[in-house]
Amino acid sequence: MPEQKNPHQGPIRLAIVGGGPQSFIGPIHQSAAVLDRKFQIVAGAVSSDPIKAKAQGVAIGLSNDRAYASVAEMINGEFQRSEADRIEAVAVMSPNDRHFPDCCLALQAGLHVICDKPLTHSVTQAQTLLKLVDDSNLVFGVTYNYSGYPMVRQARAMVKSGAIGAVRMLHVEYFQGGMATRIEDTELTPKLQWKLNPERSGPSLVLGDIGTHAHHLASFVGSSPVTQVSADVGTVVPGRTFDDYAAIQWRFANGARGMCCVTQAAAGAENNISFRIYGETGMIEWQHTQANYLRHAPLNEPLRVLGRGDPYLLPPAVRATRIARGHPEGFRESFANLYSDFAALITEKQNVKAPDRLAHDLPNIRDGVNGLLFIEAVLKSSHSDGSWVKYQSV
Amino acid sequence: MPEQKNPHQGPIRLAIVGGGPQSFIGPIHQSAAVLDRKFQIVAGAVSSDPIKAKAQGVAIGLSNDRAYASVAEMINGEFQRSEADRIEAVAVMSPNDRHFPDCCLALQAGLHVICDKPLTHSVTQAQTLLKLVDDSNLVFGVTYNYSGYPMVRQARAMVKSGAIGAVRMLHVEYFQGGMATRIEDTELTPKLQWKLNPERSGPSLVLGDIGTHAHHLASFVGSSPVTQVSADVGTVVPGRTFDDYAAIQWRFANGARGMCCVTQAAAGAENNISFRIYGETGMIEWQHTQANYLRHAPLNEPLRVLGRGDPYLLPPAVRATRIARGHPEGFRESFANLYSDFAALITEKQNVKAPDRLAHDLPNIRDGVNGLLFIEAVLKSSHSDGSWVKYQSV
Amino acid sequence: MPEQKNPHQGPIRLAIVGGGPQSFIGPIHQSAAVLDRKFQIVAGAVSSDPIKAKAQGVAIGLSNDRAYASVAEMINGEFQRSEADRIEAVAVMSPNDRHFPDCCLALQAGLHVICDKPLTHSVTQAQTLLKLVDDSNLVFGVTYNYSGYPMVRQARAMVKSGAIGAVRMLHVEYFQGGMATRIEDTELTPKLQWKLNPERSGPSLVLGDIGTHAHHLASFVGSSPVTQVSADVGTVVPGRTFDDYAAIQWRFANGARGMCCVTQAAAGAENNISFRIYGETGMIEWQHTQANYLRHAPLNEPLRVLGRGDPYLLPPAVRATRIARGHPEGFRESFANLYSDFAALITEKQNVKAPDRLAHDLPNIRDGVNGLLFIEAVLKSSHSDGSWVKYQSV
Amino acid sequence: MPEQKNPHQGPIRLAIVGGGPQSFIGPIHQSAAVLDRKFQIVAGAVSSDPIKAKAQGVAIGLSNDRAYASVAEMINGEFQRSEADRIEAVAVMSPNDRHFPDCCLALQAGLHVICDKPLTHSVTQAQTLLKLVDDSNLVFGVTYNYSGYPMVRQARAMVKSGAIGAVRMLHVEYFQGGMATRIEDTELTPKLQWKLNPERSGPSLVLGDIGTHAHHLASFVGSSPVTQVSADVGTVVPGRTFDDYAAIQWRFANGARGMCCVTQAAAGAENNISFRIYGETGMIEWQHTQANYLRHAPLNEPLRVLGRGDPYLLPPAVRATRIARGHPEGFRESFANLYSDFAALITEKQNVKAPDRLAHDLPNIRDGVNGLLFIEAVLKSSHSDGSWVKYQSV
Repeated sequence: MPEQKNPHQGPIRLAIVGGGPQSFIGPIHQSAAVLDRKFQIVAGAVSSDPIKAKAQGVAIGLSNDRAYASVAEMINGEFQRSEADRIEAVAVMSPNDRHFPDCCLALQAGLHVICDKPLTHSVTQAQTLLKLVDDSNLVFGVTYNYSGYPMVRQARAMVKSGAIGAVRMLHVEYFQGGMATRIEDTELTPKLQWKLNPERSGPSLVLGDIGTHAHHLASFVGSSPVTQVSADVGTVVPGRTFDDYAAIQWRFANGARGMCCVTQAAAGAENNISFRIYGETGMIEWQHTQANYLRHAPLNEPLRVLGRGDPYLLPPAVRATRIARGHPEGFRESFANLYSDFAALITEKQNVKAPDRLAHDLPNIRDGVNGLLFIEAVLKSSHSDGSWVKYQSV
Repeated sequence: MPEQKNPHQGPIRLAIVGGGPQSFIGPIHQSAAVLDRKFQIVAGAVSSDPIKAKAQGVAIGLSNDRAYASVAEMINGEFQRSEADRIEAVAVMSPNDRHFPDCCLALQAGLHVICDKPLTHSVTQAQTLLKLVDDSNLVFGVTYNYSGYPMVRQARAMVKSGAIGAVRMLHVEYFQGGMATRIEDTELTPKLQWKLNPERSGPSLVLGDIGTHAHHLASFVGSSPVTQVSADVGTVVPGRTFDDYAAIQWRFANGARGMCCVTQAAAGAENNISFRIYGETGMIEWQHTQANYLRHAPLNEPLRVLGRGDPYLLPPAVRATRIARGHPEGFRESFANLYSDFAALITEKQNVKAPDRLAHDLPNIRDGVNGLLFIEAVLKSSHSDGSWVKYQSV
Repeated sequence: MPEQKNPHQGPIRLAIVGGGPQSFIGPIHQSAAVLDRKFQIVAGAVSSDPIKAKAQGVAIGLSNDRAYASVAEMINGEFQRSEADRIEAVAVMSPNDRHFPDCCLALQAGLHVICDKPLTHSVTQAQTLLKLVDDSNLVFGVTYNYSGYPMVRQARAMVKSGAIGAVRMLHVEYFQGGMATRIEDTELTPKLQWKLNPERSGPSLVLGDIGTHAHHLASFVGSSPVTQVSADVGTVVPGRTFDDYAAIQWRFANGARGMCCVTQAAAGAENNISFRIYGETGMIEWQHTQANYLRHAPLNEPLRVLGRGDPYLLPPAVRATRIARGHPEGFRESFANLYSDFAALITEKQNVKAPDRLAHDLPNIRDGVNGLLFIEAVLKSSHSDGSWVKYQSV
Repeated sequence: MPEQKNPHQGPIRLAIVGGGPQSFIGPIHQSAAVLDRKFQIVAGAVSSDPIKAKAQGVAIGLSNDRAYASVAEMINGEFQRSEADRIEAVAVMSPNDRHFPDCCLALQAGLHVICDKPLTHSVTQAQTLLKLVDDSNLVFGVTYNYSGYPMVRQARAMVKSGAIGAVRMLHVEYFQGGMATRIEDTELTPKLQWKLNPERSGPSLVLGDIGTHAHHLASFVGSSPVTQVSADVGTVVPGRTFDDYAAIQWRFANGARGMCCVTQAAAGAENNISFRIYGETGMIEWQHTQANYLRHAPLNEPLRVLGRGDPYLLPPAVRATRIARGHPEGFRESFANLYSDFAALITEKQNVKAPDRLAHDLPNIRDGVNGLLFIEAVLKSSHSDGSWVKYQSV
């Protein structure tokens, strides 16, 4: 191992972008980041409204001098601090349209970045970020948090180890109910104001919000990228002007095929994402509503239900588990596992610790770009009478 | 009520076609037919092999003089008996290629018919049968048995009563595992000999075997026909020469859309058919593995699990239930409910009993034709790069 | 094998006692008896009211000359028929107080008997029947039907084969809701008229009705009799004059212990009986609501869910299954499996067939007696402040 | 409201006792305490071994000057700090035998205390603590964490609101598998060293470890104390010298009765605690393995499955939920809810905030005492041949 320059003392200093008091996902990111004591949140620009940002930063516990009005101001302020004191990384949990400019600023300032999905609005923006990352020595993570669940990592590891043989079919479904009614006719919350505005949320709400999760989950557990899609995207709630439904047939590089359905207009649905993957010799299934379990049906043998924390699990699942079996972990810990990987990759870059091979499963800039390529291909097919669209992931 | 001519004494006299000792589905049909004492099986031609048919008929309990070598011989023999003694109806449970000729003979002889699915090999054959039925005063049922489950009938009744408002999405899945391995390389059972021979089983094995079930189930619970499909049909087991996989996007006359996936190559799968139907105000879900229950998720209320035999069920579910709640019924009773409807429709024709409106939910000749139209459209779309194919049900 | 005297032609000729048109359990017994074509129901005395018995017998399909007014009359009438024509066995499905006299008459006439539970009202009566059976060459079965479920038989076979090592704990629960409200204040159905009358139903309704099922299930799957109980029996519905609740701690001859709770006053409960059995190296669990599955949790391995019809099952489960995996069977088939065993034991007595070792798992006269011994011990403990009561099964 | 003295700035300053790097429960307590930003952990004595305590305190993130060698030293050190800086509360997560002395010291120093269960070794010790608390103005919480789950609180609120009418039966079960094998024959971990030593863990391992949880859960959801028990306590693993099994019949002040079974020797079990409560008009059920859901079966209506985060929940469940429906929370958040109540009660005492009535559901010193009274009564009954033992809760 090369000589250790600048060995790190204590937790990595993290700034947050977005995640103010009214944010849904902000508190999750923040508690997840510190859960394993690998980060401390020391600064932030928690609103895109510069007037509110400072007060809201203090309100969620930032010190007065490090609650900033904007990302630009934050970078400026932090770099006036000593190297041992200033922020090292940025966590972006702002509205979608802020991802691209905020990530650019952070990367250009030499900061490691972890960003919520979808990465950007367009493939072009995403590729710009990819270039910035590739030209740097920085870590870039994307919080496709479902890949942080221990039992999802177990599924991926089992598939890679051949537990079900060659993959033949891979189905993913993500159903939410939040847009089952015409919420667009109600008084909009701040979150809905940007979500329902395509200028701010991106070209297809349902694909950006949850389609990218479904797509990443499929490529993650199957370890093979999507190469073709035939899709039907639209609205199931009459008179709606944004997409709330996408049905997709997909094919993967490894020859597998399957179906993907995502919708936010499923009345009565929980936030349930699930996958089933069928191979030559068995099936593996996971559902978010029972996140601590994984179902494995080997051909001609009893169905097996694997439990988080159990002694027979593979290393990627074991290392993503904090509490013994029978003590459920949840959504927060799925994010914490991504933050833990993010920390490991940063310390690896800082030559503080030997590389942790498994931390490299953290969704990265390429996964972010692929999400945008997927959205583009799906929309293209849907606009072409469902014809198959081929594309190449990065 | 009109004058009763020829009032019926005792159970209806039924002949079976197919369903010999090695048949899988035969014993189900036979025990289902007699379960409610509405039919008695008095005759049969239980093999398409005339040499075996007679001995096999005796082996399964037919009397020596009414175990026939062929359907033609049976009709000939029976019509030499008195009207009060001869068969009144025929149940066809023979291999697929026998459905068309056997049904033709039975209808031409003036016998009521209940036939297993798929109705025929082709749309043309199906329409020929339709004309025969329409020109007669005969009952014709098709054993899409999943529509015989009480909780499926409850689902249909709830949808019709507006329990979930206008239907928006309807997904059906039917996964089997029997062809997950290359059974075509093993010594073929008699059943597989005809199944794996397209001359005998029809143009697309997976669509005929289980796709027609999925299609009927969707139109049954949603009370609206499929009008368009975009499909991907093929094989997921390498080197296979028959279809084992079909992924379908469909749209219904009522504006709903959704996905349908059927495969017989799902390693580790049970014989699980399921549907989920989302409306404006809620979701209804049923799975064959938990056939005695129905899940209903009303918008913003707790999920409800309805149980067969419970006191709040609607009439179509109540009348399809024999045993009190908590005493599971199964596959056999799903067929028995169809046979019970078949009997009710026959006695209605015979003017013995007042019409039972609910018995008319028995899948009929038009449902049989529509299954063939669906297969045709799905294959056409799959051969046209997934383009949408529109068609008109009968 | 000894010379075959009187080789049997066709199904065994069975008479039914009780099971008229209003009976709940009657149609189950009757359809179960004939399901596998091993019996034909040729005669019966279907009501304990001689005035109704004949007409009701005809109403459920008996021929006019073999629908009898009473058991005595039936035996008299049948024995005037030729040996090749008269009844060979009797199935008793009458109210509890009729079991003892009806079984006595049948046994004394040399007829094989299968009788519903509880066997009798008292230990003394039960032992009288035991002596009659032991002094004869007759088969006597008791329809503890839960032992007829294939997955219950699988559990028993697994325990016997050592799949979970020595048994340490065995818990059984049977909760029904039918008496959660004060049905005694409503107009009583014929069934409730005798059930709520201790003169007719026996000393403790809940113990006779469902406690005997729970007790038999425990001794069946654990293959070890109960030797001690400490119990609390009473009513949970205020002001009620019959038992609706029994909580029991029990110990088994093999050293295992556990709890048993039975109640008919569980508002909201289905007819759910379940067991869990813990051994040195794992757990096995079954619930009636999911009767087609068995859960096996081996120590430090994934939970396994075994499915009826699956290829890895043990012989006692395989032979009790008619339909392939994924095609649910239910309550009716659990009775049919007992009837099938009953037939096998009869043909064994008749020297028609070689013994089928597995058919001997049919609950027999000793299981019937043990049910009464259990009731007696449980009531004694409950009346003695919960002190432990030891007793010896037969 | 009285004048506010000493209004609190920022989070409450908390010290931890126990919970060093090898602790199982320590990290849960610690992350739970800070999750809602209501506490900051500023000091601690994290090992009962004074030599290790300081270094281990630093290792888990305490500052060097506030990582103490013992509780006594900590109190001494902290009270040399200004009132605005010193600790205000103590969280005790040390081995069982340390609870009593550590809580005494903390209470005598005027510190609020939250302590893990069982409260102490004996009823006498527990009553000593009760007197100390009653004579002070201090808050004392006990981390019966299962009462912190939102859906458990929902159950309690529903029962209190009459959703199932008068309570009739209440069953609780807590099965673990950790002692299914003879771990006492292996090299003992530090945790097992004290657990398996009755001098350190208390008079009955299984009752102290999990029996107290089961007992509190029952009295919490049923809102009525246990008044009588009939029990069987012992070992199911042969040759074992400590209790690993307890079967209990109990009766409650409100007239309900039921069964409770707790064991740590259930091979194949997860850490599953569950309850079912039956009332006049329905049933409510919760299982730890599906902690985010609650099942409610109203008489003659469909079963309802309520989900954490759903809009129809009652206030005690709503306030204990951070994340929207469909985003699972787990074990950690159950503790965090207790810590949140603990903070609310402290600020109430400090006159900083108006009382939050619902925070008073935090298990308190009386619940702690009652746990010891329950253990005493259960052991007494078991030693008296299962006779019923009556006692009076505090």
